[in-house]
Amino acid sequence: MPALAERVRASFDRQHAMQLIRASLPLVEPGRTEVHVPHWQGIEQQHGFVHGGVVGMIADSAAGYAAMTVVPAEASVLTVEYKLNLMAPADGEKLVARAEVVRPGRTLIVTQAEVYAVKDGRETLCALMQQTVMVMQGRAEKT
Amino acid sequence: MPALAERVRASFDRQHAMQLIRASLPLVEPGRTEVHVPHWQGIEQQHGFVHGGVVGMIADSAAGYAAMTVVPAEASVLTVEYKLNLMAPADGEKLVARAEVVRPGRTLIVTQAEVYAVKDGRETLCALMQQTVMVMQGRAEKT
Amino acid sequence: MPALAERVRASFDRQHAMQLIRASLPLVEPGRTEVHVPHWQGIEQQHGFVHGGVVGMIADSAAGYAAMTVVPAEASVLTVEYKLNLMAPADGEKLVARAEVVRPGRTLIVTQAEVYAVKDGRETLCALMQQTVMVMQGRAEKT
Amino acid sequence: MPALAERVRASFDRQHAMQLIRASLPLVEPGRTEVHVPHWQGIEQQHGFVHGGVVGMIADSAAGYAAMTVVPAEASVLTVEYKLNLMAPADGEKLVARAEVVRPGRTLIVTQAEVYAVKDGRETLCALMQQTVMVMQGRAEKT
Repeated sequence: MPALAERVRASFDRQHAMQLIRASLPLVEPGRTEVHVPHWQGIEQQHGFVHGGVVGMIADSAAGYAAMTVVPAEASVLTVEYKLNLMAPADGEKLVARAEVVRPGRTLIVTQAEVYAVKDGRETLCALMQQTVMVMQGRAEKT
Repeated sequence: MPALAERVRASFDRQHAMQLIRASLPLVEPGRTEVHVPHWQGIEQQHGFVHGGVVGMIADSAAGYAAMTVVPAEASVLTVEYKLNLMAPADGEKLVARAEVVRPGRTLIVTQAEVYAVKDGRETLCALMQQTVMVMQGRAEKT
Repeated sequence: MPALAERVRASFDRQHAMQLIRASLPLVEPGRTEVHVPHWQGIEQQHGFVHGGVVGMIADSAAGYAAMTVVPAEASVLTVEYKLNLMAPADGEKLVARAEVVRPGRTLIVTQAEVYAVKDGRETLCALMQQTVMVMQGRAEKT
Repeated sequence: MPALAERVRASFDRQHAMQLIRASLPLVEPGRTEVHVPHWQGIEQQHGFVHGGVVGMIADSAAGYAAMTVVPAEASVLTVEYKLNLMAPADGEKLVARAEVVRPGRTLIVTQAEVYAVKDGRETLCALMQQTVMVMQGRAEKT
């Protein structure tokens, strides 16, 4: 398990786009992860909330890494598609994307993610995602 | 039409997240838009391609603004949900998201967007999106 | 609550398509429903499993009625869109679609449904759906 | 090509669920198909329109068979997932689902379908679908 979390974190750390938005990956467990992003001006839309595109980015990323936790070390994963419902403005101090594997298949993995906006310590569900991930057997990520 | 394009561009320019990824909105016409983003290191994933989350961001944004072109000046729009298929790595010098309105309704608008990766002047379709947008009647964007 | 369940069941009973596939609505509670369908030859695909289209029909229907349980009696509901992952063949004696409301809004409701195939009393998750429903205020279903 | 169309039609004819709703497959060409269904009482919902679930069934089916036209004879196809927007009531004498392959991959195929309601000879776009299909190499459909 430390090896697994390390492998997933190493991949996350190589994603410049996650650094650009200041996202972190504080939780990696078998079948689930969390991606956090603080609310800062650079990721806002025109009303001062976090941009829906950023909400989608962390939902997709959290869910893809949740899928990565259930494939062998010598395989990698690729997002095939996802569907995201935006349900409330992403208001508050930070966003928390919680993802989990719903069905781990040999070739395809189905995942779900929820994104919460945290304001004054209270969480509001602001997005829901359903995603399909492809497993690339025998093609570990280059490090 | 100049007023329309101006209104849409003013909204786009207020989105810090679009500036963060260096996106621009070179085309605004009734029912369709284009959002471009150059390929630069800050938006890459771990393999050196543009991050799928950024592909989703510009598809969502282009389609939302296409929807905005078909609503009255005193209304605004909100992404309800979208579904995105990632079909090829976002490789090349820049990405071009082309969006259009499929069905303009009074309350809901359905749109589509395609994202192309441009490499050595050749375009490759790398993503396809279908989106639902809600119209907020009588609630123009604050400027 | 009896009035609510009665209203939902009356609507279900007016759907010829649900009778055609032999679906029933054994559970109606605030925010959730179940639709069941026995496995019979008329709804099979070419391999002898229940057709994916029928799986989608009962997921959509169960989730739409779950949404109906959270709107006022003088409103009706309409499916805007849904996204369905088919994850395992619909094998066994019957299918059970379980739906629940994730976020009840005034204009839009987001729901989820899972479809299980029951074989020799054991349930297998065979489909997962995420759906958006529109509320038609002041437009009760005609009876 | 006649062999291709014959193979696709043979598969369609083995789907009891397509017969149940009285669907036909009048067009099979490389990369695209059409599925038609007459409007009859058995497939209606509570307002006398064709049930959204039936709209989804023919969209999914047409698109799956469009995918089948681009895989080798010794392969078969499986719907992974689809996303459907219902945009107008399915009113009129018949429904026509038109599907085409957007991106044919070795393992995954992305398709789109539009469903039109035909009334007094005029077509109205009533649904739009985006679908992902998996190719099962070396596993031809049993006949």
